[in-house]
Amino acid sequence: MGGKFVSERNLKFLLYEVFDAESLTRYDYYREHNRKTFDMVIREALKLSKNLLYPVFTGMDRNPPELADGKVKVHPSVKTIMNEFGKGGWITGRMPYEQDGNQLPHLIANACDFIFAAANYSAGVYPGLSAGAAHLMESFGSRELFDTYAPHMLAGKWQGTMALTEPEAGSSLADITTTAEPTGHGYYLIRGQKIFISAGDHDGVENIVHLMLVRIKDAPSGVKGISLFVVPKNRIDENGRLISNDVITSGIFHKLGYRGCPIVQLAIGDKNNCRGWLVGEPHNGLRYMFQMMNQARIGVGIGAVSIATAAYYASLDYTKTRRQGRSIAKKDPDLPQIPIIEHADVKRMLLFQKAVVEGSLSLIMQCSKYVDMIKVLPDDKKEKYQLLLEILTPVAKSYPSEIGIESISQGLQCFGGSGYCDDYPLEQYYRDARIHPIHEGTTGIHGVTLLGRNVTMKDGRAFRLFLEEVQETIHAAEAVNELKPYARELEDALEKLQEVTSHLLNIAKEGNREVFLADATLYLELFGIITVAWQWLLQTISVQKALKNKDALSEADANFYKGKMYAFRYFFGYELPGIEGLAKRLLNTDGLTVEMKAGYFSD
Amino acid sequence: MGGKFVSERNLKFLLYEVFDAESLTRYDYYREHNRKTFDMVIREALKLSKNLLYPVFTGMDRNPPELADGKVKVHPSVKTIMNEFGKGGWITGRMPYEQDGNQLPHLIANACDFIFAAANYSAGVYPGLSAGAAHLMESFGSRELFDTYAPHMLAGKWQGTMALTEPEAGSSLADITTTAEPTGHGYYLIRGQKIFISAGDHDGVENIVHLMLVRIKDAPSGVKGISLFVVPKNRIDENGRLISNDVITSGIFHKLGYRGCPIVQLAIGDKNNCRGWLVGEPHNGLRYMFQMMNQARIGVGIGAVSIATAAYYASLDYTKTRRQGRSIAKKDPDLPQIPIIEHADVKRMLLFQKAVVEGSLSLIMQCSKYVDMIKVLPDDKKEKYQLLLEILTPVAKSYPSEIGIESISQGLQCFGGSGYCDDYPLEQYYRDARIHPIHEGTTGIHGVTLLGRNVTMKDGRAFRLFLEEVQETIHAAEAVNELKPYARELEDALEKLQEVTSHLLNIAKEGNREVFLADATLYLELFGIITVAWQWLLQTISVQKALKNKDALSEADANFYKGKMYAFRYFFGYELPGIEGLAKRLLNTDGLTVEMKAGYFSD
Repeated sequence: MGGKFVSERNLKFLLYEVFDAESLTRYDYYREHNRKTFDMVIREALKLSKNLLYPVFTGMDRNPPELADGKVKVHPSVKTIMNEFGKGGWITGRMPYEQDGNQLPHLIANACDFIFAAANYSAGVYPGLSAGAAHLMESFGSRELFDTYAPHMLAGKWQGTMALTEPEAGSSLADITTTAEPTGHGYYLIRGQKIFISAGDHDGVENIVHLMLVRIKDAPSGVKGISLFVVPKNRIDENGRLISNDVITSGIFHKLGYRGCPIVQLAIGDKNNCRGWLVGEPHNGLRYMFQMMNQARIGVGIGAVSIATAAYYASLDYTKTRRQGRSIAKKDPDLPQIPIIEHADVKRMLLFQKAVVEGSLSLIMQCSKYVDMIKVLPDDKKEKYQLLLEILTPVAKSYPSEIGIESISQGLQCFGGSGYCDDYPLEQYYRDARIHPIHEGTTGIHGVTLLGRNVTMKDGRAFRLFLEEVQETIHAAEAVNELKPYARELEDALEKLQEVTSHLLNIAKEGNREVFLADATLYLELFGIITVAWQWLLQTISVQKALKNKDALSEADANFYKGKMYAFRYFFGYELPGIEGLAKRLLNTDGLTVEMKAGYFSD
Repeated sequence: MGGKFVSERNLKFLLYEVFDAESLTRYDYYREHNRKTFDMVIREALKLSKNLLYPVFTGMDRNPPELADGKVKVHPSVKTIMNEFGKGGWITGRMPYEQDGNQLPHLIANACDFIFAAANYSAGVYPGLSAGAAHLMESFGSRELFDTYAPHMLAGKWQGTMALTEPEAGSSLADITTTAEPTGHGYYLIRGQKIFISAGDHDGVENIVHLMLVRIKDAPSGVKGISLFVVPKNRIDENGRLISNDVITSGIFHKLGYRGCPIVQLAIGDKNNCRGWLVGEPHNGLRYMFQMMNQARIGVGIGAVSIATAAYYASLDYTKTRRQGRSIAKKDPDLPQIPIIEHADVKRMLLFQKAVVEGSLSLIMQCSKYVDMIKVLPDDKKEKYQLLLEILTPVAKSYPSEIGIESISQGLQCFGGSGYCDDYPLEQYYRDARIHPIHEGTTGIHGVTLLGRNVTMKDGRAFRLFLEEVQETIHAAEAVNELKPYARELEDALEKLQEVTSHLLNIAKEGNREVFLADATLYLELFGIITVAWQWLLQTISVQKALKNKDALSEADANFYKGKMYAFRYFFGYELPGIEGLAKRLLNTDGLTVEMKAGYFSD
């Protein structure tokens, strides 16, 4: 095994050549940074990943968390990882200076998260959740609440979580039943159950701080009655000591993958002694949580592209060294066998991985840049980026999640029988990645969010802004000879997307919302392919710029840019045509799945 | 969990309404059988599966084979299973009466294998391999060889295997180096290594009989120098006792799934004391082995559709009982939650599974019928079916293997987070099924076989026969009003297939074989979708026949046929359009993957 899990070269290409991370330092908020500090951060993230995370990637999988005597025991390296991440300031990366943060642009911080997750997805979840929870408290909680909990979380001593799901409330958060009863003492008494809570309990930290969705007694039904609470596993008593807060880990789930991190079931307030503290205003919990959730959704996209990236490099390494068969043109058995990377079908599988992985990462970086623009721009100018971010979030979550599984599967296929065995990491990547189309909203949920909400919101303004962004890239590409035909292809694809969208919105207008949304998942898939095609065209504009000075390039750089052009052509030649079948289906709205009855499945 | 893993109703629909299994009993070879004996066999297979195989499905996965002190210990139920399969005559099912077989049609025997694999894929592999190995000895070995080994294998006391793969010879069998040295005593001395040998050693039987590909000393290089040998783990000495034959299990592989069955590494003849017996003529081994391999390839198709079928019924059961959310049309949170099967997107995921699973099973039954026709027809009439079987074998192996993974993934998705956890069987189905695109020839190999060999063989006769078979179904469907538009769609699809095929064959004529075959995997995918669309149209002709007497149908039957029509329309509405993108790509032969250089992947 080569042990390469990301490409620093490609990351820097995206950061500096495509998304111009340095331009952010012209804004006041990021003025303390420069290319040098960015590079240093990336270098340190790579070092940490190589030395700390990647070496326990397999070990954390083979020794998964266990629940015994009410305690969740995790791999011993989790404690070290949390400590190192705390000490190194990795959990506070995005936080402002006044909160002892590093005020890092999301472009850079997300690039680091990408590196961490590629080295060891499970390991990266722990600090990631703490960072998200602390950010949520910073945004909506009181200063007192923040000061009580966040510093411990940011130091890696306490674990933050998102505690949303309940046995009867998974995709349907409206049905949350965990309740909070006011006491008049500044805290509420919490009682209920939560399931599937990632890092919801473990012995790698001293305490767990749940950011929990709870219904205050007598609150309105549905999502309008949900509030956000801080519910620690151990609370601080009058003497400043940690005492049990009646949050019991009642179960642990055994998972297909992602085994380095526990997901647990919690029994809350069984002894009527669980205290929770309200974050912000009552009944606004879902709105607050969506801040963390939307960030977590980009985070899932990052996780998905990370694992697929690591799988790609592992399969690339294997195909270069594994010899099998001979050229189709020269089949003489007396010739030596050739490395399988020489077979066109293997190159196809590698190009597929490269194209969807690098395309997905570009989309993640695009969204990260939008987050940064929202951070630095004045209110009247940031709305554009808020809308672009909102319309692309379901895509940035779902496209990498779905295609990531296929990509890893192709990586596994490159190994043949060895890919199916645990001597190589592919089978673990394959297991780890399958969580992504499920958590933080299933792909189905995101389809409905995109088509049923985001495309039409603000009179379709977000959708129009998206079209304009893509058009802008198309126009820029039209000015480059080599890219002209591809610009035209993307133009056609964009027209097809508009045609499909209009067709579907007409059905909505006719009032049949169920038929309108029946194939929303396919619409999301169509949207995703076109979005990533756009990202590829955007990348190649930078590639062509670099190639203008062809002769000045090192051989490595020349190869890098050539590889980019092939992956780009692969995406347009092999992936983009996939929209034909999707569009054909989406334009043929026959209500088939709506009409189908449960009883007809029986036999 | 409902515990339903197959539909007896659907199986009988295929056997009797679509493929008219009873018609086989008009031929001399199958004259002892009738509908009653067929039904009895199916009933017994279901009973055995329910009582013996399904109950240990999870247990065999959680307690995988272990190698200790040179011995492979498997789950204790393996011994029971082999005994019961031996006693019940399940291993001899297809064997002729004179070999103590049951002379069962392949249609029926394969239906049984389908049931077994759906209940417990790993468990079904053991007897299946023994049956295949015994069949191989019957076809090509001497009577003496057969009588020495086969009766023990057919009784479930000894295990048969296929021993092909070596560390340096996986997809490239030409590179096999295990050697056989003649001794002049009727046996050869064998020496070499084999890897990935399924059921290659275990304590559920008293002996293992390897059907092994070996190169006789000084044989021609390449596939033309490969011979087939019987190499037992223990050989029979002069006194009729079993003694060690110097076949040592040097390793066991830890696999993603399919964990109920060991795959092992063998060190053969390290002490120069391993005896092997030649099967048939020298240097004809690969040709012989292809008999077993082609049967094994249909067997992989059966395994793939079996697991996906079991996953489909598990997810169907879950979606009927799991309540979550409300109708998109009536979102009032005060209404009770609805079973998720009421959501259109969930029905879409179920219809996808139903459509690809039942379509794949139909294709398997179609191929089984061809095998039976070859068995019963005189030489001059059987060639047609031989060619049809040959051209469809890569499709029947690969389509279910590839789509099966997607199908199970959608089944898992229906469970949400629960699908990712091992409280439900989906995560195991997901792991088990991933082997299928790999073993018995990877999907890539089958693409090259289909396009590079089968489409052109005998001057394209097999391909023309395939087109005629599909045309025949189209014509029959054109006579049914409800099916006319679909007949036209399949006609169009078939034209597209011919257009793509001609285009590619022209490239072959120009002499660029590498470019010609570069996208053979995509060609196989295109071919597969059209083939299964054909099978769906074929099924609906029988459905429409049954619906003529609508009023006489029981409610269950009426629902069954309605479900069939929806799944059929799903396939034509959602799956068949996938050929548009594939055809677009295949017609755009730019040699991209051939031109791409290994060095461009580096960065």
